[in-house]
Amino acid sequence: MGNGELIYPSTTSIECAHRAAIPPSKPFFKTLKSSLKETFFPDDPLRQFKNQPPSRKLLLGLQYFLPILEWAPRYTFQFFKDDLIAGITIASLAIPQGISYAKLANLPPILGLYSSFVPPLVYAMLGSSRDLAVGTVAVPSLLMASMLGNEVNATQNPHLYLHLAFTATFFAGVLQASLGFLRLGFIVDFLSHATIVGFMGGAATVVCLQQLKGILGLEHFTHGTDLVSVMRSIFSQTHQWRWESAVLGCCFLFFLLVTRYFSKKRPKFFWISAMAPLTSVIFGSILVYVTHAEKHGVQVIGHLKKGLNPPSFTDLAFGSPYQKTAIKTGLITGIIALAEGIAVGRSFAMFKNYHIDGNKEMIAFGMMNIAGSCTSCYLTTGPFSRTAVNFNAGCKTAVSNIVMAIAVMITLLFLTPLFHYTPLVVLSSIIISAMLGVIDIDAAIHLWKLDKFDFTVCLSAFFGVVFGSVEIGLVIAVALSMLRMLLFVARPRTFILGNIPNSMIYRNVDQYPVAGRVPGLLILQIDAPIYFANASYLRERIMRWINDEEDKIKALGENSLQYVILDMGAVGSIDTSGISMLEEVKKSIDRRGLKLVLANPGSELMKKLDKSKFIAAMDPEWIYLTVGEAVGACNFMLHSCKSEFTKVNSGAPPDENNV
Amino acid sequence: MGNGELIYPSTTSIECAHRAAIPPSKPFFKTLKSSLKETFFPDDPLRQFKNQPPSRKLLLGLQYFLPILEWAPRYTFQFFKDDLIAGITIASLAIPQGISYAKLANLPPILGLYSSFVPPLVYAMLGSSRDLAVGTVAVPSLLMASMLGNEVNATQNPHLYLHLAFTATFFAGVLQASLGFLRLGFIVDFLSHATIVGFMGGAATVVCLQQLKGILGLEHFTHGTDLVSVMRSIFSQTHQWRWESAVLGCCFLFFLLVTRYFSKKRPKFFWISAMAPLTSVIFGSILVYVTHAEKHGVQVIGHLKKGLNPPSFTDLAFGSPYQKTAIKTGLITGIIALAEGIAVGRSFAMFKNYHIDGNKEMIAFGMMNIAGSCTSCYLTTGPFSRTAVNFNAGCKTAVSNIVMAIAVMITLLFLTPLFHYTPLVVLSSIIISAMLGVIDIDAAIHLWKLDKFDFTVCLSAFFGVVFGSVEIGLVIAVALSMLRMLLFVARPRTFILGNIPNSMIYRNVDQYPVAGRVPGLLILQIDAPIYFANASYLRERIMRWINDEEDKIKALGENSLQYVILDMGAVGSIDTSGISMLEEVKKSIDRRGLKLVLANPGSELMKKLDKSKFIAAMDPEWIYLTVGEAVGACNFMLHSCKSEFTKVNSGAPPDENNV
Repeated sequence: MGNGELIYPSTTSIECAHRAAIPPSKPFFKTLKSSLKETFFPDDPLRQFKNQPPSRKLLLGLQYFLPILEWAPRYTFQFFKDDLIAGITIASLAIPQGISYAKLANLPPILGLYSSFVPPLVYAMLGSSRDLAVGTVAVPSLLMASMLGNEVNATQNPHLYLHLAFTATFFAGVLQASLGFLRLGFIVDFLSHATIVGFMGGAATVVCLQQLKGILGLEHFTHGTDLVSVMRSIFSQTHQWRWESAVLGCCFLFFLLVTRYFSKKRPKFFWISAMAPLTSVIFGSILVYVTHAEKHGVQVIGHLKKGLNPPSFTDLAFGSPYQKTAIKTGLITGIIALAEGIAVGRSFAMFKNYHIDGNKEMIAFGMMNIAGSCTSCYLTTGPFSRTAVNFNAGCKTAVSNIVMAIAVMITLLFLTPLFHYTPLVVLSSIIISAMLGVIDIDAAIHLWKLDKFDFTVCLSAFFGVVFGSVEIGLVIAVALSMLRMLLFVARPRTFILGNIPNSMIYRNVDQYPVAGRVPGLLILQIDAPIYFANASYLRERIMRWINDEEDKIKALGENSLQYVILDMGAVGSIDTSGISMLEEVKKSIDRRGLKLVLANPGSELMKKLDKSKFIAAMDPEWIYLTVGEAVGACNFMLHSCKSEFTKVNSGAPPDENNV
Repeated sequence: MGNGELIYPSTTSIECAHRAAIPPSKPFFKTLKSSLKETFFPDDPLRQFKNQPPSRKLLLGLQYFLPILEWAPRYTFQFFKDDLIAGITIASLAIPQGISYAKLANLPPILGLYSSFVPPLVYAMLGSSRDLAVGTVAVPSLLMASMLGNEVNATQNPHLYLHLAFTATFFAGVLQASLGFLRLGFIVDFLSHATIVGFMGGAATVVCLQQLKGILGLEHFTHGTDLVSVMRSIFSQTHQWRWESAVLGCCFLFFLLVTRYFSKKRPKFFWISAMAPLTSVIFGSILVYVTHAEKHGVQVIGHLKKGLNPPSFTDLAFGSPYQKTAIKTGLITGIIALAEGIAVGRSFAMFKNYHIDGNKEMIAFGMMNIAGSCTSCYLTTGPFSRTAVNFNAGCKTAVSNIVMAIAVMITLLFLTPLFHYTPLVVLSSIIISAMLGVIDIDAAIHLWKLDKFDFTVCLSAFFGVVFGSVEIGLVIAVALSMLRMLLFVARPRTFILGNIPNSMIYRNVDQYPVAGRVPGLLILQIDAPIYFANASYLRERIMRWINDEEDKIKALGENSLQYVILDMGAVGSIDTSGISMLEEVKKSIDRRGLKLVLANPGSELMKKLDKSKFIAAMDPEWIYLTVGEAVGACNFMLHSCKSEFTKVNSGAPPDENNV
């Protein structure tokens, strides 16, 4: 039975028609309390405190703010063995990565090591993830370099630049902690997955491009990050390319990629790819030391200061003329780092089936960055690569972060001279190899298959970063996320419903071609909540459906349209503009001599319709619990009472409906 | 039967269970075309061109861009008689109002008359409303004064100020026309009704406060618009108050309010309130002329230049250092004027049951302001007060605007000297009386009754304008509108469904206390589309519902939970983040040893679930067309096949379901 065919559904339903109920009214403050709770405490953090004695409540409260108190008493030696292995593994990744990313941020390389010492210790106490490994990340590092670099030159004025980086880290921490305390964590959700895939992919590409400086051993390089500037900068100085550096870089990159590929194929050998960066660093350093390559165009790290993090509280540049730049940089890099950290923590918690409280995590990230900014660290979060290694290495708790911090501490105290001969080109290879993992082509293909608009959004964010700048890409990403949501909200779908043969079920005729139209009736489903943003559109769309239907009926020479049934089942909420829209639609439909029938209104809709006197105006008898019952009643009126049509129009319902 | 009681619904449904269908796939470009059409052409303007011969298409196309061609051929003498009366009535209102609002914008009073001459003629040709009367409006006038006044002092540098006003008007027109051409009219919908009520009320209050200068006859006055500055300014110069002016002002205000009240009570005498402003102006002018009150502290308009609008195209300040200010002012005042004009046009079209094309109206407004900016007019739109008078006076077409323009033309050519002695205090009274009508307390009460959050939004916008400034109020209004929408989207509702006794219907147990829970089953309804912005929330909320249900079952000592049925009927659309969320929820539910069942998925949901391989992962047999059928199948498994529970968990459906 095709879309266009007509069937007469059974009208037996009239005998069991139900009335749509107005929900019992609740006191204002109870409603307010429950909506505030849903807005700010959707995860119900106070749930565990219910019905507990005060001493237990105190303990639970302490455990809430210091999760280490929760798991430490249950900690066993077996756990420690696993955490020790994981901790050493991530330390071997953290040291070269830390140095590389600090270079990317135009900061002294030693800061990368400092940043892998204090923040992991803070996170181990405050964080609720068991898998997250704390450290610096590439994209916020690059973004920090580009935003602060616009104001202060890192080579000409390294002290000011360093102080601004600490200040930015401090404000990033303050932002992260405040979002957590104010329970505004859901703001992070407004960056859609598609924009994040595109933005991260673009940023990773840009980071890779920047590494061409190190790979080719160039002394001078563009400050721009876009593809065009970088290509121009590289090809304008082909005579400066150093083949020693390039050969070394390509070899190490090849080595890193092969180990990564191998570990991906055989997850048991995860440690091969995890150890590869440190192996490269050691091997590269020995090679340079032996061949004195530093005198043949291979740049090396040089002197690294021995000793633990010096305090940097006094370096925070409050009141400096550049404070505004530092705040802006802090807020933007802070939110990006937060988004990455939360997403990573959540994904791994999903694997192991435990729960992560997003707001609590934000407080942990915030505290760790505030503490970091006072101890010569810059922005840290939970990077994906390091966390994945931690997870694969079999970490059990945040103790693996403590082990990593201790390993880094030992390095800082005794081993820094060993990095003197480490070639920069190895660091570039490490960054490129890590960034190639961030470019998620599979996710982009998945987006293309699932949702073309999401794919477009993803691509725009990508090209914005690659051809514009990281900031432009970010603005495009956020704007597109917002636009995506506005379009979602502003243009909801409406459908014509038809009867599924031999049932009382009415469904979208596009989805169920077997569903048949009911003559004389137009059954429309509004497939979204009605807000001010879509009320005008819905009004026009409903009237257009009615026009289309009347045209179709005229063309087929059928009986004229008599009833318009609106299935409100999907109208979960409505605001005052939505109610006005319904009133206007009712007026327009009445004026055409048709009758508006509502089916399946939800509780909020009924409540508001009742308060607005709409129900009184439209005869509550013409509001049914299901579309089937509404159709039954309309058919009953159409077929049994044709002579009494005037009565129908005046709204008197058949007695059978008054069940 | 209460909320907590349990019932066993009939399981007969299994025999007629239907399978949820995956909609037939459409080619990509067809989908793209249809979504572009819904986004930009929801009103289907090309509808009338379908199946028409080319000559008719040309005519319709011309009529589309020049609506006057559509109605002019059908114009009759009877129409003209009505339009003549309406036109003269609105002219009598337009002249004093125009002068008053020009004073409010710190512009020469004559500009108010100019602005009632050219723009109405342009609108009469391009506009599609039959009731809209064109003219200047108070709030954008005040906003223009305050925004331009920040940069250029209108008394010290009147020429520059005037040129900037023309430039701002030009850009307002360009913005309005572009929004129309690009079919982006829906942007105006994003200002919610509640914020507009609050903002307009606040702005009207501020405008009234500004009139205290005229009423009290003060020479010096604050440039601030907030309540505190105005009150300080007034009470710091009590010795300057002129009682003559105040008495005159209060008398006229009283007269205007009485006539308005009378006309409101007896709509037949609409012309009494419509004529009252002109009467006041004439009477006031005579009084001043006779008593020489201008020498006793009553300020008068003074000399008005005779003659029609001089061209002002060369005055447009392109490339001036203040161009940026002019553009900003133009864009902001343009969008506010547009929102008012569109809303007014639509409301009156509703009354008379004809359709207004929002995008076409925007083009008309834009063209009228571009033309206006070249002929010494400033920003015009369709003010509510004047349009209401036009409507009450029985206007039939836009010819009433032409009549008004001719009346204003005659005034400009011959009658301007008569306004020499018009006291400013009368103009202040006219503005106050008009503005008191804009403060819509009933609407605010309606908001309070219907939706407390909307009321809060309205109040915040109001206080933002009154205690901050018009700009601050506007920013608050827009920010609150956005926040309102974000909250709508970010926090959708979820409900527990119960069985309505003696039926297969499942509804929200809060709305239908009679609905009973089904043992062993948790039936949840997600009451909104699932986007990236609410996916995280929904995941946490669904898991919380399951936790709560398990706690409840434990407390009651019932059998454990076995099935979680998600009613997806209201999930009209879903994006990739939403699909990931469902996959995660399924994993979590599986891990708890429960079974996820989907009911009533819509076409987009089915399409995307299919593409994402979710359906393959979850056994398509566990997706039902209705909640009733899903419950039937679950109950069948629970009661008949308890011994075969392992089979259920492995997902094999009972044979009866394979209909």
